[in-house]
Amino acid sequence: MVSRRSELEKGDEEEVEETSVEKAFEGKVVPRWEKQITLRAMVVSLVLAVLFTFIVMKLNLTTGIIPSLNISAGLLGFFFVKIWTSVITKMGMLVQPFTRQENTVIQTCVVASSGIAFSGGFGSYIFAMSSEIANQSPEANGPQDIKNPTLGWMIAFVSVVSFLGLFSVVPLRKIMIVDFKLIYPSGTATAHLINSFHTTEGAKLAKKQVRVLGKFFSFSFLWGFFQWFYTASEDCGFNSFPTFGLEAYKNKFFFDFSTTYVGVGMICPYIINISLLVGGILSWGIMWPIINARKGDWYSADLKSSSLHGLQGYKVFIAIAMILGDGLYNFVKVLGRTFIGLYNEFFKKKTETSSNDPDSTSSLSYDDKCRIDMFLRDQIPAWFAITGYVVIAVISVIVVPMIFHQLKWYYIVVIYVIAPVLAFCNAYGCGLTDWSLASTYGKLAIFIIGSWAGAPHGGVIAGLAACGVMMNIVSTASDLMQDFKTGYMTMASPRSMFVSQVFGTVMGCIISPCVFWLFYKAFGNLGVTGSAYPAPYALVYRNMAILGVDGLSALPQYCLIFCYVFFGVAIVINLIRDLVGKKWARFIPVPMAMAVPFYIGSYFAIDMCVGSLILFIWRKLDKLGADTYGSAVASGLICGDGIWTLPSSFLALAGVKPPICMKFLSRAENTKVDGYLES
Amino acid sequence: MVSRRSELEKGDEEEVEETSVEKAFEGKVVPRWEKQITLRAMVVSLVLAVLFTFIVMKLNLTTGIIPSLNISAGLLGFFFVKIWTSVITKMGMLVQPFTRQENTVIQTCVVASSGIAFSGGFGSYIFAMSSEIANQSPEANGPQDIKNPTLGWMIAFVSVVSFLGLFSVVPLRKIMIVDFKLIYPSGTATAHLINSFHTTEGAKLAKKQVRVLGKFFSFSFLWGFFQWFYTASEDCGFNSFPTFGLEAYKNKFFFDFSTTYVGVGMICPYIINISLLVGGILSWGIMWPIINARKGDWYSADLKSSSLHGLQGYKVFIAIAMILGDGLYNFVKVLGRTFIGLYNEFFKKKTETSSNDPDSTSSLSYDDKCRIDMFLRDQIPAWFAITGYVVIAVISVIVVPMIFHQLKWYYIVVIYVIAPVLAFCNAYGCGLTDWSLASTYGKLAIFIIGSWAGAPHGGVIAGLAACGVMMNIVSTASDLMQDFKTGYMTMASPRSMFVSQVFGTVMGCIISPCVFWLFYKAFGNLGVTGSAYPAPYALVYRNMAILGVDGLSALPQYCLIFCYVFFGVAIVINLIRDLVGKKWARFIPVPMAMAVPFYIGSYFAIDMCVGSLILFIWRKLDKLGADTYGSAVASGLICGDGIWTLPSSFLALAGVKPPICMKFLSRAENTKVDGYLES
Repeated sequence: MVSRRSELEKGDEEEVEETSVEKAFEGKVVPRWEKQITLRAMVVSLVLAVLFTFIVMKLNLTTGIIPSLNISAGLLGFFFVKIWTSVITKMGMLVQPFTRQENTVIQTCVVASSGIAFSGGFGSYIFAMSSEIANQSPEANGPQDIKNPTLGWMIAFVSVVSFLGLFSVVPLRKIMIVDFKLIYPSGTATAHLINSFHTTEGAKLAKKQVRVLGKFFSFSFLWGFFQWFYTASEDCGFNSFPTFGLEAYKNKFFFDFSTTYVGVGMICPYIINISLLVGGILSWGIMWPIINARKGDWYSADLKSSSLHGLQGYKVFIAIAMILGDGLYNFVKVLGRTFIGLYNEFFKKKTETSSNDPDSTSSLSYDDKCRIDMFLRDQIPAWFAITGYVVIAVISVIVVPMIFHQLKWYYIVVIYVIAPVLAFCNAYGCGLTDWSLASTYGKLAIFIIGSWAGAPHGGVIAGLAACGVMMNIVSTASDLMQDFKTGYMTMASPRSMFVSQVFGTVMGCIISPCVFWLFYKAFGNLGVTGSAYPAPYALVYRNMAILGVDGLSALPQYCLIFCYVFFGVAIVINLIRDLVGKKWARFIPVPMAMAVPFYIGSYFAIDMCVGSLILFIWRKLDKLGADTYGSAVASGLICGDGIWTLPSSFLALAGVKPPICMKFLSRAENTKVDGYLES
Repeated sequence: MVSRRSELEKGDEEEVEETSVEKAFEGKVVPRWEKQITLRAMVVSLVLAVLFTFIVMKLNLTTGIIPSLNISAGLLGFFFVKIWTSVITKMGMLVQPFTRQENTVIQTCVVASSGIAFSGGFGSYIFAMSSEIANQSPEANGPQDIKNPTLGWMIAFVSVVSFLGLFSVVPLRKIMIVDFKLIYPSGTATAHLINSFHTTEGAKLAKKQVRVLGKFFSFSFLWGFFQWFYTASEDCGFNSFPTFGLEAYKNKFFFDFSTTYVGVGMICPYIINISLLVGGILSWGIMWPIINARKGDWYSADLKSSSLHGLQGYKVFIAIAMILGDGLYNFVKVLGRTFIGLYNEFFKKKTETSSNDPDSTSSLSYDDKCRIDMFLRDQIPAWFAITGYVVIAVISVIVVPMIFHQLKWYYIVVIYVIAPVLAFCNAYGCGLTDWSLASTYGKLAIFIIGSWAGAPHGGVIAGLAACGVMMNIVSTASDLMQDFKTGYMTMASPRSMFVSQVFGTVMGCIISPCVFWLFYKAFGNLGVTGSAYPAPYALVYRNMAILGVDGLSALPQYCLIFCYVFFGVAIVINLIRDLVGKKWARFIPVPMAMAVPFYIGSYFAIDMCVGSLILFIWRKLDKLGADTYGSAVASGLICGDGIWTLPSSFLALAGVKPPICMKFLSRAENTKVDGYLES
């Protein structure tokens, strides 16, 4: 969710020039929609989908912060197809030229596929059902509250819930794109990028960017490889480096040399990174030490450190309160803007020009004329969309209760009746603000269905599964509409977009569960606090579900008061951010981002701030270079480290353990250890 | 000594263009010689002398490889005086303009001063007398064979022996510089550098170079500071990083993250670094493991690892054999060239033009005319030089036996009678080849005086002290002549050169013993094999002295055969290098460099190869940039880390120990330690 906001701010920046793009492409023929989906595009999409699924899964399971990978997908897609065509051409065969439409198809397919790694909930609701997470809460861990992941049911579940979103918004695409002219900042930015690649000059620049990306990719991969050797066990290696001393390390303040998060920090806006750091300092630097000093008074001193009745409880629930406060505020805000927008569209259309509609129909630009013409040529009939939705909904209503017997079929029917409306709202809101509320809708489902089902009937699992059903529809709906916007601006056919989304979703439904399964089997301690893969949101989601079912009885003393305060603070900060205007809002932290380090600590925030700092200095020294190559460097860093998890997980599966432990001991400990080793 | 050869190859490269330099300086007045020695020059010299003494001392005590620091001294001298003048000018006062003559004075003074850190033998003959080193040999460690360093006698000793060299060659300067036109590659290169700084364009470039140097200086300093925190005890921290695994680490193959040696590697020619690596692989990779397998057969298995009767003996004596072989070869070669050169000068002058004298007197270039004119204007009378020599020699003959009662006064008289001839030979040979044979002459003195005195009369100390007396004369003689050449080419007066040398020597006689004393007191385990400051040459020199006194009885089985073989190999390799010509010699390792890692391992060779690699890649990517800024980067890396030893030794003296140990354990050890720490 943090990432969405980052896209927003990026998107806004790119939304400046709009001279005629289509004039530059006047000579080039747009291929028929079937020709836009080529074999090579599908193969490249598959390769990239695997790559990005690994990256997203790693991010899911480490911090849950996922930056926008659209730019990387666009760049790498372009790069792979260019190699493909040049190899084939050298082999003396004639090839179909590489068009921007094809590029859009790849981009769409990859985003659809890797999106499932996020919306599939492998770092949140699905993993929250497992016994690993359940055992960290003292409540609600009976057999009806646990569903351990297996490959079979995960694939079945994501397959039946992921396609609904696609069908739910297809009929509305003309209204959203052509009539409402919604911005969809991410989609627009991606379209700009793809368009730029396919001009002669752009292709040259893209090549250079790819070279930079490749360099940092290799560096990041090799660095991951090198680090591996020194990580014989927990608390070993560079990711346990007490950069600021051992005391700071105990409070999770250290730079962990993760190139992934340095890269993520370079992509996210400065204020997000600063927010994370502020949140980390506030929580681990100030609040937790104070609360820890009340041990034995506010909560029993005998508790295990992972018990939610102790300090851990404050960490998790205060974070939840802040996330919910931020979510609620944005929910109300985006919904409000949605309704105001809709009201303007339908009732004031004739009398005044809405702010989202700068051109009236008579004064359409040349670009828009070309694009609308193309966009309306290939239709997807409404009956097709509606039939598709109903058929898949019926299958889903039958299959999902077979997987989760706690989730009765009528809950699902209720969700599916409401869902299209929410999907529309989310797609519209996302078009205005770039902010997808998918996980907020998911949390709503947790509370509503969870309390409806009730604790004795496995309300925890019911709530989490309902969250999954809801999130998938709502999330894919907004993603698809983003892609339609990209397609609109690159003259790709809506049909090829849709088909590409379907392909991508099919890939994602198989790749994502498999990748999660690999992580789950390879790294023994998935979801354990303090390990390399704490999967923070899994615990958060499970505790939200417990909260929904059991109420607030589980919380330690004063925790509820803290929660109310932080819930309120989150709303107030958001309100202030919106009231003071963009100029000052840049300096006010984002509550959602502040809440993330509450639970897992601020080491990744330090990585990300290092990324910000690098970019900041780079821009000071060479603004043009930083703006041109910044995202290529970041993508390289993220992708290289991300792909290293592939061999590293295979090594772990094969039982190959790193040979050396780089350990950090205090001087006193070291003396003891030296004595022990010599004896 | 390795460094001398590196200067040679550098010097050769720079010796290409020689259009008229003096025309560019035609407008500028050369100040009188007293005006060339300014207060600011002396202050800057003092600051730089302290800096470079720290660096040289650190190098002395870690590996004994000392690169040419002339370029850094030139650059930093220029930089400091420029700051000085601009500050004074801003304060509204008129200042004397900064001339190249003044720059040469600073350079000369700094080199003279920091030269004493090397020729004073703090890493070799003086430290070799201490009980720390003596206790590592089983022989000759009775009270008459040990002289522990104290500040008093060290200052007294270097003061009485360091000035003789200055006086011994002063009368010969006209013959060497004007008549023989010797090249002195290092001196020439430094003069080129200084001349270039004082043109308008050169000053701009110098500023940029200084900025680069400053950046890498800061980086290197901060990196040293950062590393410090993780070095709570032996085998902790980045300088014990098993980069290539624990097995390789045990055999001293690892990258120890020392910016100093990366910088040194960038200055030394590729072949030196490769030679070091080849030597390291040959010894630690092949020979020592094989010899170690003969433990219990070739030598007793009960010996301590530091005993010279065991494996350590092979390491030390084979290294000595190789160094002596290389030294002997070069001694004969340089002496041969010296005599041939002299023969040509005196007997064939009229009939043919010698290769060292491209212009005959009639066809002198404009530059040479100006320079000779200037060089001959300020004379130093011969009676002054001879009187000086005799007075100081008398003082020395009285004082030195008071310090070392083992060294009788008549040994010193003998040395002082022969020394001027050797000093002349060395200055002449150095002018031809840039190779100073100072330490070879020193080794000769060890063997001759040592065996003359004999073991019962403290022959070890007598030999080492005689080495010091000899080395200082011979070394300063060649250094001074180098400086005369620099002065000649920058139109500095011989008088100001001489005075500056005297000042520098005075500084060095006080600074160097003090800095050594600081290291000695601050780092407890100076001279211990495997520690941070093993001072390898101290043990080597002591064992040469023992060899000279006791003969070859001390060696373990077959060691003598190995020594003969490697002695021969060193000569043969040198012969091949000379026979195949420069084109192929580039690919043949240098025996002297190969011998260094025999005893201390190849970790620093890996650092240096990393430096080479960086430079190599840099030159591939951007030749001009690498050539312009390469030595600035290297100097920055060396100086930053070198100056960090100043605060670090103060911290050590104050008893402040680093708080953390970064330890490297094998997986098995780590499991044991984790169990121990938890219990």
